[in-house]
Amino acid sequence: MKFGIVVFPSKKLQDLANAYRKRYDPHYALITPHMTVKDVFEANEQEIKDVAKAIKEVAKKHSPFELNVSKVGTFAPITNTIYFKATTNDDLLALHKDLNYDFFGAESEFAFVPHITIAQKLSSGEHDDIIGQLKMVGVDHTETVDRLHLLYQLEDGSWTVYETFRLDEDN
Amino acid sequence: MKFGIVVFPSKKLQDLANAYRKRYDPHYALITPHMTVKDVFEANEQEIKDVAKAIKEVAKKHSPFELNVSKVGTFAPITNTIYFKATTNDDLLALHKDLNYDFFGAESEFAFVPHITIAQKLSSGEHDDIIGQLKMVGVDHTETVDRLHLLYQLEDGSWTVYETFRLDEDN
Repeated sequence: MKFGIVVFPSKKLQDLANAYRKRYDPHYALITPHMTVKDVFEANEQEIKDVAKAIKEVAKKHSPFELNVSKVGTFAPITNTIYFKATTNDDLLALHKDLNYDFFGAESEFAFVPHITIAQKLSSGEHDDIIGQLKMVGVDHTETVDRLHLLYQLEDGSWTVYETFRLDEDN
Repeated sequence: MKFGIVVFPSKKLQDLANAYRKRYDPHYALITPHMTVKDVFEANEQEIKDVAKAIKEVAKKHSPFELNVSKVGTFAPITNTIYFKATTNDDLLALHKDLNYDFFGAESEFAFVPHITIAQKLSSGEHDDIIGQLKMVGVDHTETVDRLHLLYQLEDGSWTVYETFRLDEDN
């Protein structure tokens, strides 16, 4: 089974992201707006129980952290993906590190660029058409994230939640 | 904000349900297959923190329970909804009672018929066309449910998880 660990931002930010995703993100119907903190990894139904325990231990060591999105960014020309860029901060980086190094699953291939995707799998033409307009609209939103979600993927490509991990749970 | 409490069955049962939902359920892209244990209720961002605490207390008093689906049922002629019928058992009824009586939100309007919807909002003609075939295919699956999920609805009608509550968490 394929798993991943994400943050679901507040309803307000999800609704904002969905306004774009609805038009520009083919994954719109497969998963609600999210910031990935651990990319897809494989585990079976037994292994995931151990992974969940390990995530719980990590969550205990971390406190709620600030999520600030203040820019529309793009991964072009690597991929035609447009996103709300999350400002990196020590808390978020430390959490990402604990979930991606010396932890289940392979280490991240790419540098960690925390983001909430709003458009992807665009042709270069489509990308170039909308990036200017999206950058102009911009985004400026700050909130506190106090939980993570472990998700797994169904056969049809949609993602469903396995478990939530609170960051503010007293140890 | 609209909230609801559901059980997400195993991947196997969700994939089976999705095979039908993909064709017959307009809510297919809004939420993954689920069994509702508390219908939609309203709460604001402050109230839901209290609701979550109350659900946690209820979850502590309940153990994992058996989910057995062994029949395809229909709510016709009340509504043209077809579903996998979950066999009621004392554990499930007790959990439903604690989440729906003397708890947040209105008491359930309807008798509790635990189910996983696989088709809905059909015309009577569509319903009558497929109910026979779906009943013949049938379903026979048993698993243990060890968690609940509190979800809320986004502006586009999709549902996203607020928190998961384990039933097997040692008190």
